[in-house]
Amino acid sequence: MTGLAEDDLVRRYFAPLAGPGALGLRDDAALVALPAGEELVVTKDALVAGVHFFAGDAPGSIARKALRVNLSDLAAKRSRPAGFLLALALPAGWTTDWLARFAEGLAADAAHYRCPLLGGDTVATPGPLTLSITALGTVASGAMLPRTGARAGDLVYVSGTIGDAALGLQLRLGETAPPWSGALAAADRDHLLDRYLHPQPRLALHEALGSARAGMDVSDGLVGDLAKLLRVSGVSGRLDLSRVPLSPAALAALAADPACLETIVTGGDDYEVLAAVSPDATAAFEAAAARAAVPVTCIGEVRAGDGPLVVERGPGEAVAFARTSFSHI
Amino acid sequence: MTGLAEDDLVRRYFAPLAGPGALGLRDDAALVALPAGEELVVTKDALVAGVHFFAGDAPGSIARKALRVNLSDLAAKRSRPAGFLLALALPAGWTTDWLARFAEGLAADAAHYRCPLLGGDTVATPGPLTLSITALGTVASGAMLPRTGARAGDLVYVSGTIGDAALGLQLRLGETAPPWSGALAAADRDHLLDRYLHPQPRLALHEALGSARAGMDVSDGLVGDLAKLLRVSGVSGRLDLSRVPLSPAALAALAADPACLETIVTGGDDYEVLAAVSPDATAAFEAAAARAAVPVTCIGEVRAGDGPLVVERGPGEAVAFARTSFSHI
Repeated sequence: MTGLAEDDLVRRYFAPLAGPGALGLRDDAALVALPAGEELVVTKDALVAGVHFFAGDAPGSIARKALRVNLSDLAAKRSRPAGFLLALALPAGWTTDWLARFAEGLAADAAHYRCPLLGGDTVATPGPLTLSITALGTVASGAMLPRTGARAGDLVYVSGTIGDAALGLQLRLGETAPPWSGALAAADRDHLLDRYLHPQPRLALHEALGSARAGMDVSDGLVGDLAKLLRVSGVSGRLDLSRVPLSPAALAALAADPACLETIVTGGDDYEVLAAVSPDATAAFEAAAARAAVPVTCIGEVRAGDGPLVVERGPGEAVAFARTSFSHI
Repeated sequence: MTGLAEDDLVRRYFAPLAGPGALGLRDDAALVALPAGEELVVTKDALVAGVHFFAGDAPGSIARKALRVNLSDLAAKRSRPAGFLLALALPAGWTTDWLARFAEGLAADAAHYRCPLLGGDTVATPGPLTLSITALGTVASGAMLPRTGARAGDLVYVSGTIGDAALGLQLRLGETAPPWSGALAAADRDHLLDRYLHPQPRLALHEALGSARAGMDVSDGLVGDLAKLLRVSGVSGRLDLSRVPLSPAALAALAADPACLETIVTGGDDYEVLAAVSPDATAAFEAAAARAAVPVTCIGEVRAGDGPLVVERGPGEAVAFARTSFSHI
């Protein structure tokens, strides 16, 4: 306990992040006006210390990750950030220094992504630090990219590289270092650790995703998330593991320990965009992604029927994993 | 752990509560369209077991309270519920029976208040059960009732009765029974306990609050919350404790132990509406509240200047309390 009342705390640390609709964070609620012809996209993710991040992570990084995982959902829906609400449950022994650094990281991202703080709630918890963010975005009416739109014949694309964050988490977790870690240069290890801490919401894909038929963000593992997208679209598909884009760091890990492929494609925390694009739209999709300087890679295709996703290491060489995605339950 | 993946859990327990914009809870985000001429009001409250409710409370009551404290914020802003998002962090040892009863209570209130589930997140926590709800409401453009609108000369009203929930909490908390508890009939005790568990959001005051200039809900204690409303409006005021509306149960407690007045007016958890009404609008305000069958009582007035709220037990008899409101930090 710090002797700060909630109002003082809000005024000191959070009011600087507030947008116009936040009413100075001095009201019961925030007010959001939507431009004509736009709809609202709303998403909410919760994060718990020791489950979704390490309690000892830099406070600014915890804040940024909490915001960015929500912005990643907005990005995958073709929605532009409009603002967010934060519920913060502070554990025993929290300090104003910790909170100041948390708010500083949050402020930097709120400014960078033009996503002001609209409101929220700060409470005490006898448990671990817990936060949830609700992000609001806008999208032209009818233009939200659904998960359910994949059709047989579509090509499956993913942005960026896959597996970095899951490998970064293994570097953090291991009481014993993972078998591949010795093979990595310091810069590679830093890359993986940073990808775990600081996801990059792919908001720049806004225009490109106008050429897609279905999309979602990869948060729980590529294989499981693609299976989900196909299932809710009522279709099946094939994932070609040899085409999954990997960073130099992930390639080095894979070369040292081929078994870490499973971590790479099922570990999650990627926050890349997975999209189904009809064959006649792939050129436009790829060109727009290139203009946005976001790498996109075709990794498979959508097939008719409701059978399971086929995951292949090479043509005709199917692979099965013990688990296909990470579950926080 | 129950072996249920998050998707199964959502499908089984939460999909029945979903509204049209929830996209079957199978997408990354929900979609909300606003009717022309309306704005969105958004609020978010977090609740932690052992802080805001008892871990052993009926799961359905925990769910209802979490939703209702948010609907109370919407009500105080003259906003009609449009939907909500839920972040649920389940502690070790949770059971599907618990979750089924939680979802059942939530479903009943979602139906009663016409406030469907739009989305959210379910995670595990090594700490206590923690939830946060983000409630979305609509309001005619420009018609949101702010906290900041009170002006000198306005009359201060409050809905319902004050202090019941705080007394109910004392009945629950005490290792030793509070001194007044022996004086209460069983029905009075039940009333206080129920008021703590099941707040009543005053959505029915929608029309009446059209005659108000400022409003907020009383969640942290009447004295502190009124002081807040006046402060952000840049005015001062007077609260007449003798006019604060009390239930028969609270009157019995007060008769047995006059010292419990402090609990009544500073304890919080009331979820009644506090409003500032200009003198020429009080008749319309009272008539509309009567049509809505919600009791409202004038308990003081707004004064010019930025001095502190004057709290009087009777004319000229000022009272000071050790603390004026409850803080969860």
